[in-house]
Amino acid sequence: MSSGSKLAVRRAPAAASGFAWPIRVYFEDTDSGGIVYYANYLKFLERARTEWLRALGFCQSELAARAGVVFVVRSLAIDYLRPSRIDDSLQVTVEPVKVGAAQLVVAQEVRRDGAVLVSAEVRLACVNAATLKPVRIPQAIVIRTGTTT
Amino acid sequence: MSSGSKLAVRRAPAAASGFAWPIRVYFEDTDSGGIVYYANYLKFLERARTEWLRALGFCQSELAARAGVVFVVRSLAIDYLRPSRIDDSLQVTVEPVKVGAAQLVVAQEVRRDGAVLVSAEVRLACVNAATLKPVRIPQAIVIRTGTTT
Amino acid sequence: MSSGSKLAVRRAPAAASGFAWPIRVYFEDTDSGGIVYYANYLKFLERARTEWLRALGFCQSELAARAGVVFVVRSLAIDYLRPSRIDDSLQVTVEPVKVGAAQLVVAQEVRRDGAVLVSAEVRLACVNAATLKPVRIPQAIVIRTGTTT
Amino acid sequence: MSSGSKLAVRRAPAAASGFAWPIRVYFEDTDSGGIVYYANYLKFLERARTEWLRALGFCQSELAARAGVVFVVRSLAIDYLRPSRIDDSLQVTVEPVKVGAAQLVVAQEVRRDGAVLVSAEVRLACVNAATLKPVRIPQAIVIRTGTTT
Repeated sequence: MSSGSKLAVRRAPAAASGFAWPIRVYFEDTDSGGIVYYANYLKFLERARTEWLRALGFCQSELAARAGVVFVVRSLAIDYLRPSRIDDSLQVTVEPVKVGAAQLVVAQEVRRDGAVLVSAEVRLACVNAATLKPVRIPQAIVIRTGTTT
Repeated sequence: MSSGSKLAVRRAPAAASGFAWPIRVYFEDTDSGGIVYYANYLKFLERARTEWLRALGFCQSELAARAGVVFVVRSLAIDYLRPSRIDDSLQVTVEPVKVGAAQLVVAQEVRRDGAVLVSAEVRLACVNAATLKPVRIPQAIVIRTGTTT
Repeated sequence: MSSGSKLAVRRAPAAASGFAWPIRVYFEDTDSGGIVYYANYLKFLERARTEWLRALGFCQSELAARAGVVFVVRSLAIDYLRPSRIDDSLQVTVEPVKVGAAQLVVAQEVRRDGAVLVSAEVRLACVNAATLKPVRIPQAIVIRTGTTT
Repeated sequence: MSSGSKLAVRRAPAAASGFAWPIRVYFEDTDSGGIVYYANYLKFLERARTEWLRALGFCQSELAARAGVVFVVRSLAIDYLRPSRIDDSLQVTVEPVKVGAAQLVVAQEVRRDGAVLVSAEVRLACVNAATLKPVRIPQAIVIRTGTTT
């Protein structure tokens, strides 16, 4: 499956200090091909982003209730490099690569025992929770995600 | 949400003659933000690819049983341009853009009343169903997908 | 798997005149055991209930917007009698068995070529869309579901 | 929603010593009604059963590979008593109520801060992984699940 690397998502490797969230693979995640279904990695990626924000002090339901903002995925590119299977113990990383006024780009990887199975770059927009129109990312988040561009 | 167009997936619009599959949005597809959850569009895209292959005469479970091959997604890029909601009636298109020896690239769109909500480019690899190693796409499929590169 | 019949859901067979909705099994529905994942039948059941209501003239998103009511599942009992697999073409039936003031009980089956694979009884409550508190089922629905108890 | 208790699943409360598995609610679990989608609780229940077996020393993928057996759900009854929402921190319990020769019945609850949101009784069958025909539960599991009937 090395052919997967040709269109490799362009991104630096997550630093050793980066955020990682553990995910266990259950039957719900797999398909009859015996491997994790491709759409389900997007669930893994979002769980990790949610926990990364929580670790920085931000709970998305509180952001929506208090600041009236939510993050939505605007685009993503993902490479499926190696399959994952039932009972696998995975690590999902999050690395901010760009923090703009109303957008946030993160690089993410799904790893098993250090090997990268899936690599993705996800562009998130900060939007008004009711209208879904772009709004500025709350300054506290900009500061704590700690990336200047 | 026009900002979504900046990283627009590079692909020609699906021809009027292209394949389209109808999808209805149910509660299972939505999330508490009130819109279709981003991972679930990948399910819609695969349903359409499956039906496109079926319309060309190829059933994936038979391909696996007889030819011992399956298609797996190697990479994809997707733009989420506009949200979709419960009870929406969508059309999902499939347009082959490149057919290689062991890979197939398709452009896909999710539309509602002609408006493009989601645009994606999906790279599929033909692999051995047991080993998941790349194999040549069966010649009949190459011919009927009708794209030369 | 006849042992599955011991705790069989108590319900009359759906009449020939009953509502049935076609469902195709895709990879997303299966798990690595090679069969449809047990939770996913609940999605099939709800798709059929949604289309049954639509066939009776009721769209749930409009009910929520206009009448401010939604149906939520209060309880269900389900028997998994036979497995279903990728590419299966299923029929999902809906038969109202009891229509109360604020509750609706339906019997449902998932069939393949006439054979019953899954049998369920689902109790739905009509609730206020905002508060989720029980409210009376709109009279038009009571009449058109056509069951007196 | 106290009306939900009328058809309450018949089962003793899980002992304080019972197994409980923590589950966080993410966007993927919710629907546009703003609450956890009813089918997704079945995923939570299975994650807890899987971790309960793992805590007892049994990994399902190893059971399949070595003993050639898997557990499939034969039937279940579930009461949805109170809704759950995004970011909720849940506890899912598992309590064996009957261990037969080829079947296992467990009572499960989904709780939040001690309050029971969902209550279920799940009947599992031990089957041959290839044929899906009933087989005896491995004796080690019978012993360690520690319930005599």
